[in-house]
This record gives sequence, C-alpha cells and structure tokens, in this order.
Amino acid sequence: MRILGIDPGYAIMGYGILDMKGNHFDVVSYGSVTTDAGMEMPDRLKHLYSSLMEIIAEYEPEVAAIEELFYNTNAKTVIKVGEARGVAILACVNSDVPVEEYTPLQIKQALTGNGRADKKQVQFMVKTILNLDEVPKPDDTADAVAAAITHGNSAGGRALMRKVRGR
Amino acid sequence: MRILGIDPGYAIMGYGILDMKGNHFDVVSYGSVTTDAGMEMPDRLKHLYSSLMEIIAEYEPEVAAIEELFYNTNAKTVIKVGEARGVAILACVNSDVPVEEYTPLQIKQALTGNGRADKKQVQFMVKTILNLDEVPKPDDTADAVAAAITHGNSAGGRALMRKVRGR
Repeated sequence: MRILGIDPGYAIMGYGILDMKGNHFDVVSYGSVTTDAGMEMPDRLKHLYSSLMEIIAEYEPEVAAIEELFYNTNAKTVIKVGEARGVAILACVNSDVPVEEYTPLQIKQALTGNGRADKKQVQFMVKTILNLDEVPKPDDTADAVAAAITHGNSAGGRALMRKVRGR
Repeated sequence: MRILGIDPGYAIMGYGILDMKGNHFDVVSYGSVTTDAGMEMPDRLKHLYSSLMEIIAEYEPEVAAIEELFYNTNAKTVIKVGEARGVAILACVNSDVPVEEYTPLQIKQALTGNGRADKKQVQFMVKTILNLDEVPKPDDTADAVAAAITHGNSAGGRALMRKVRGR
C-alpha cells in the first residue's frame, strides 16, 4: 500500500510517500512544496495544487493521510491554512486518491504510544521507524511523513492493506 | 467588463455574474452551488470546484470578486469555509480569472454608503441597483452579487474597465 502523507500549509506544504510492505515501511520520497511570501494567495494556491497534482501523478499513491488542523493560531492564519488544505484535499480527490484525516493526538499516539508526546519525540520515531540517518527537514516534511506512518499503522490502514492484497 | 462575484461556503456557495456597461450593470446570471451535509468534505470540495469551473467556462468572466472571510465564527467552521474558499479561488486562477478580495466593510460601503449597514440594507440595494423584482435567494447568492457590484464600483474595477475598453 502506497501512502501519501501531507502536512498542509500555504508557505510550506510537506509531503511524504511510503510503501507499507507487511509490517514495515519503505521510503519512496519526501520533501516539501514552498511558496514565496511575496506571491499573491491565488498564485500560491495554484502552485501548491499543481505541484501536488504532479507529485501524485508521479508516485501514484493509493491513499492520502492528512493532519487535521490545529486551531489555536490566529484566525487570519487559520483561514489561509484552510485554503491551502482545501486545495491539497482537492488535488487528492481530483486524482481519485481517497483522503483520511488524523488528529495531532492520533498521530502522536500512533508514533510514540503517547498522545501528549512532543514534536522531538515524534520526529525521533519518524527517523527510527523508517531507519533514516536524519529527521526529514523541515518540520512540515517530518509531520507529513508522520501522518503517512499513522495511516499505515491504523486499523483502517491495515484493513485497507489486507483488502488491497486480498488477505 | 464581466464580473463574477463569489460568496464562498462549503454548504452553499453563492455566485453572481454581472456585465458592467458604462455606469450600469446588466445581470447575466446568479445562483448557488450546494453540497449535501451527508457528503464527505473531499467530495464537497470536488463538487464546488468542478461546478465553479463549469460556471466560469460557460460565462467567461474577466475578473472575480470574493468577500473576505468574517472571522468570528467557531474555528472548526472557519477552517472548512477556508477550504471551500481555497478551491473557489483555485477555480478562478486555474481558469486565468484574476481574483480581487473585498472586506465586508468595503462591500457595505460600496452598496449603501455606510460601512455599518445591515444585511437587509445591502440586499435592498442589490435589488435596487440591478432593478430586480426580488432580492436574490439565498443570502449567499445576494452576497455574491454584492461582491460583484462592489468590484464594478471600485476604483480598481473602473480602472480595469477603462483599460479593457482602451479609454
């Protein structure tokens, strides 16, 4: 099962693509799409959407995992992040890739066993689970990879894997 | 100058298309795109985007006017409205239609001369300015039409009109 993890933002959108094989993950690719602060928001959204469409076309994930938004930022930023999130979800659904959402709590729980783990613990587990030399940078990329791992290790993800593989 | 006004929402997205000729408006079309509460958010976003793409392809507006979000709703709703707003802006920019944003204050000021006017006054002026028998329904449609009128009557809108017409 090939999983695309996305951490949606309008300045930096992290992504991570993992293959889940049996009980382990192979890393296919990870990185981030960035937009310049000097760009108008419509152009930023267009760039995010088209870049994500290209990534999906290239790697052909079977499912996308996206972190639910964290609400306690200021309202203006939340709206812009919501706009970026909307075009990220649209890129998936327009490419026939189903989207699953996970809360920050679910992601922390899935990676560390502790829903109150801090960012460093989550990043350490991303590195450990994937057997990487370093934590993916920037944080948005690590968060996207963490969302993909969460989906792979979730009940829904495992059930889908069995279905896909006919087991 | 053909103007598309949009009032972005995920349950109801209002739109209005006006032709500005000299100092008056001709109504081309108005209405709303709706999504069912039982639909998953990715499917709602896909429907909103594809419907708006079709409307743009049919009416070929030269510019889109969109109301800036009003922030004092609860955060969860704001994010979903932000997502809908993101795909609406994307539909415009992916169709090469530039997007201009107007605050609620600017819209009230443009239509009634009073930035603190209430919804009924704005709707009354939409009906009066366009010489309609009734206020467009639902409110989202009237709001979208109001955004289009605001653009037509704004300095930027008038300058663009002169440029388009070579005056």
